[in-house]
Amino acid sequence: MTETPKPATVKARLPRGFADRGPAEIGATNKMLEAIRASYELYGFEAVETPFVEYTEALGKFLPDLDRPNEGVFSFQDDDEQWVSLRYDLTAPLARYVAENFDKLPKPYRSYRMGWVFRNEKPGPGRFRQFMQFDADTVGSASVAADAEICMMAADTLEALGIGRGDFVIKVNNRKVLDGVLEAAGLQGEGRGAQKLIVLRAIDKLDRLGSDGVRLLLGTGRKDESGDFTKGADLAASAIDRILSFTAARAGDNAATLDNLATAVGDSVIGQEGVAELREMAALFAASGYEGRIIVDPAVVRGLEYYTGPVYEAELTFEVNDENGRPMRFGSVGGGGRYDGLVARFRGEPVPATGFSIGVSRLVSALRAMKSPLVSGSDLRGPVVVLVLDRDQMPAYQAMVSELRRAGIRAELYLGSAGMNAQLKYADRRNAPCAVIQGSNERDKGEVTIRDLVLGAELAASTKDRADYLELRQRAQFAVPSTTLVEAVREVLSRHHG
Amino acid sequence: MTETPKPATVKARLPRGFADRGPAEIGATNKMLEAIRASYELYGFEAVETPFVEYTEALGKFLPDLDRPNEGVFSFQDDDEQWVSLRYDLTAPLARYVAENFDKLPKPYRSYRMGWVFRNEKPGPGRFRQFMQFDADTVGSASVAADAEICMMAADTLEALGIGRGDFVIKVNNRKVLDGVLEAAGLQGEGRGAQKLIVLRAIDKLDRLGSDGVRLLLGTGRKDESGDFTKGADLAASAIDRILSFTAARAGDNAATLDNLATAVGDSVIGQEGVAELREMAALFAASGYEGRIIVDPAVVRGLEYYTGPVYEAELTFEVNDENGRPMRFGSVGGGGRYDGLVARFRGEPVPATGFSIGVSRLVSALRAMKSPLVSGSDLRGPVVVLVLDRDQMPAYQAMVSELRRAGIRAELYLGSAGMNAQLKYADRRNAPCAVIQGSNERDKGEVTIRDLVLGAELAASTKDRADYLELRQRAQFAVPSTTLVEAVREVLSRHHG
Repeated sequence: MTETPKPATVKARLPRGFADRGPAEIGATNKMLEAIRASYELYGFEAVETPFVEYTEALGKFLPDLDRPNEGVFSFQDDDEQWVSLRYDLTAPLARYVAENFDKLPKPYRSYRMGWVFRNEKPGPGRFRQFMQFDADTVGSASVAADAEICMMAADTLEALGIGRGDFVIKVNNRKVLDGVLEAAGLQGEGRGAQKLIVLRAIDKLDRLGSDGVRLLLGTGRKDESGDFTKGADLAASAIDRILSFTAARAGDNAATLDNLATAVGDSVIGQEGVAELREMAALFAASGYEGRIIVDPAVVRGLEYYTGPVYEAELTFEVNDENGRPMRFGSVGGGGRYDGLVARFRGEPVPATGFSIGVSRLVSALRAMKSPLVSGSDLRGPVVVLVLDRDQMPAYQAMVSELRRAGIRAELYLGSAGMNAQLKYADRRNAPCAVIQGSNERDKGEVTIRDLVLGAELAASTKDRADYLELRQRAQFAVPSTTLVEAVREVLSRHHG
Repeated sequence: MTETPKPATVKARLPRGFADRGPAEIGATNKMLEAIRASYELYGFEAVETPFVEYTEALGKFLPDLDRPNEGVFSFQDDDEQWVSLRYDLTAPLARYVAENFDKLPKPYRSYRMGWVFRNEKPGPGRFRQFMQFDADTVGSASVAADAEICMMAADTLEALGIGRGDFVIKVNNRKVLDGVLEAAGLQGEGRGAQKLIVLRAIDKLDRLGSDGVRLLLGTGRKDESGDFTKGADLAASAIDRILSFTAARAGDNAATLDNLATAVGDSVIGQEGVAELREMAALFAASGYEGRIIVDPAVVRGLEYYTGPVYEAELTFEVNDENGRPMRFGSVGGGGRYDGLVARFRGEPVPATGFSIGVSRLVSALRAMKSPLVSGSDLRGPVVVLVLDRDQMPAYQAMVSELRRAGIRAELYLGSAGMNAQLKYADRRNAPCAVIQGSNERDKGEVTIRDLVLGAELAASTKDRADYLELRQRAQFAVPSTTLVEAVREVLSRHHG
C-alpha cells in the first residue's frame, strides 16, 4: 500500500467564491456565536437545525430574485430524478420544518439556528458563495408583539456583544405602510407585483445612491458609473414624489415619525393598518426602555418580496478606519421581517411568522474592527514546545509533554527532523511562551532547561549595557530538576499571561 | 405585498438520508464538540476549516471506493464548466489546504476541524447522506511519534468526555506489517492493489463476520443472509492461513503481540519496518502511562486504501441496552492513520501526514446512552412564561418580561391569541418553571401572581388529604407586589434548580 509520490498532477486551489478559515477567525466567530446563542436563549428561543440539502421545489418559490428563478442556487438531480438544492438561506428550510412538524411544536414557536448557506452567484470582493447566517424566528404569532420582541432581542444581542448604546440602531418599518403609500400614489391592484418589487429595491438603495439615485430608479432608470443601465419602475412624477416624501418621513422621535406616516398613507386602509402596527410596536419599545435604540424609519424596506408586515434592520453606526485609513461604517449587520406566506405554502392555511437574520462574517468583522474584547481577548500564545535533542530519548521527551498536558498546560513535542536551532525557530513560529530542553548534560544531572522565549526575544532586542542584563538573561534561560518541570513552566507562563 | 394564502401545493418533506436536529441533540453535540476542542488545543492543535465545496479533481483520487469513482459524491458543474463537489470527508480538503498554504504553515503542522460531510449514497437506518466528523491531523512529520501522539490524544479525549478507563480502547496496527504478511504470503508486487484492497476490507469485517466469514472473503467469496454474493480475494489456502494467523496475533500485552508479529512477517523488510514502528510507538505509550489504554491489535486495518503506515481505531467497549433492551456495544467511534501520499499529490514531493477522525453523531449517541453528565446535564427547564390576560396591557406585560430577562432569567411573553387555560397549557408544554399572571384584580392592587407549575403538577397528582396540602397550595400560587417580581420568580426557580 505504500506508494511512491508521483509528480503533482492536481493544482491545489479552491473554486471561486469559497474561502478557508484560520484559527483567529474561527475562534472569534465561535465566541460571537456563543454570545448570540446565550442572548437568544434568554428570550426563550430554542435551537433547531435543518440539513444543507432540500428539495428544490421546497425552496423554489422564495428565491431572492424572481426574475431569475433557476439561478442563484446550487442544484443537482437525485438518483430518483428529483431536483435537490443547497439551501440559500435559513428561512425557507425553517418554513418546511415547521410545516412538516406542525402538530408537534408549541405555538407560538420560537427557534434559532446558525448555519452556512450557499449562493450560486458571481463572487466578488467580500462576496462569497458560502457564508454563515444566524437566524431567529417566531412562527404562529400574528401579533406584532412578536416582531417587537425580535427587535428588542436584536438590540440586547448587539449590546451583549459589547456594542454600546449609540453605536447601533434597530430600524423598523412596515410593508403595509409602503403598500398604503403606493395605493395613495395610484399603484394598487393586481399585476403590480413586479413593479412593487422594483420600487422596494430602489428604496433599499437609498443609503447608497441618495434620493436622486432612487428617483431615477423609480422613474425611467439609472446608469451607474460603469455605464450599466438599471431599468426603473416607470412611475409618474407625482407617485415618485409621494414615495420619496414617505421615505423622508423620519422625524426626531417615533411619535413624530408615526404622525408623518399617518399623513403619507392618506385614506389607504392597509396603510393605516401598517401605521397602527408600528404604533403598537413603538408602545412596547417605550414600555421596556428601548426608545432611541429602536426607531421607526420609513427608509427601511428590505428587498425580499415575501415580507408582509413589519420589517426591521440592525445597523452599526460607529465609524472605524478601513485598511486605507479612511473612515467607514459597517452599516447593516442583520435584518428581517414578517413573512406570513412562507409556511402557508406547505400548509394551505395561514401561518403567521416573523424572523431576523444576522450576517455572521460581517458582524465578526465589525467586532474585530472595533477591537471588541469578546473576540480579540482569545489567547494567541502558542503551546509550550519540548525540543528533541536525542532521538533515542523520544519516550522521555514524550513523557514530559504528557506531564505538562496532564497539568492542563498546552504543550507539544517537536515532531520534525530538524536540529536545535530550527526547533527553536519552530517554537517562535508557534508563538510558544517557552521551550523545554534536555540534552545529555541536563539528563545526567536529572535536570531540564527552560528557555523563556518571550523574555529571550526582549533580551535579543535590548542592549547588553542594561544594569539588569545578566539577571534577565538568567531568568530567560535556567535549569531546574526534572521533577519540578511543571512548576517551572507555570512560573514562566505566569510571567506572560499576566 | 400581502398575499392571500393559496392551497398547499408543495409537500413539506426532506430528501432521503437527511435529518433535522432538535435542541437536545444540538445541545449535547455542542457540549461534546467543545470538550473535544479543549482536549485537542491542550495538545497544541489549532483550528482550521475549509469550505464545503472543492474542485472534484481535488477530491477525486481519494474516493472511499475505487471501484465506483463517480459515485458517492454530490457533484455539479460550475458556470465555467468545471466540476465541483461537496466534500465527502475532511482529509482530502485538508490535503488541498496544506498544499496550497505550504510555505505559510509551521511544520510539523497540527490542526483540527469539525464539519459536515456528504455522501451521495443509498441511505438506510442510521446511515445519513450528511453527517459530522471531527478530525485532527499532523502534517509534515514522518515520525511515528506523531501517530503515537494522536492515539494518546484520542485516549485523553474519550476520558475528557467522561468515558472511564476500561470502557474504551485505542487499537493500533501498521499497514507495513500487513504488507509484510502479504509479501510473506506471496502477494507482493505491482498490479496487486485491487486484490490488497479486497483483503483489507475483508479483515476490516473480522468483528462482524468472525474469522470464518473473513476466510470466505479472502478465498472465493461469501454469500450473506440476504443472498447477496461478495466476490473474494481468491487467495490460496496457505496465504489465507497466514493472514488469519496474523490477525489473531494479539497477545496479553503489547510486547508479546509484537513478538508474534515479528514472526508473522518473516523476512519481509517492509514487514520488519512496520513491526519496528509499532515497537517505537509502544515505547512512547509505556513511557507516558498509556499501556492498557492503547494496544497493538493486528485485526485493525481500516478500509481506506490511502493509509501507508500506522492505523488506529478508537473503540468503546462498555455495554448499553438498545431500545429493545438487548445489550449492545457502540464499537468504533473514530479512527485514522498515516497517509503519506495525499498532500504529495498536489506538491509532487513527499509530505508525511497522519490523522484521526471522530464520527460525531455515533459518539454523541454513545454519551447519551451512557447518560454522560457532559451531554445530559443540560438544563431542560423552559423559560418563565408571562401570560397575557388583557390585550390592551401588552406594553405592561412586555415590560415584565424585559425586567426578568435583564435579571438574567429566561422568560417569554405569550404571543398567541388563546385564552388563559390554553396559555397555561402552552407554559406546561414549554416546560416553564412558573407562569406570571396579572389580571385587572392584581393590577388594581399593584400585584402579580406567580404560579409554580412544577409544584402545581405535583399537587394535581397528590391527594387533598395531605396534611400540608393547603400550605403547598399556597406555595404553588401566590401574589406579590409587582416591584418584587424578579425576587419572587428567583425564589420559585431556586426551588427547582436545586
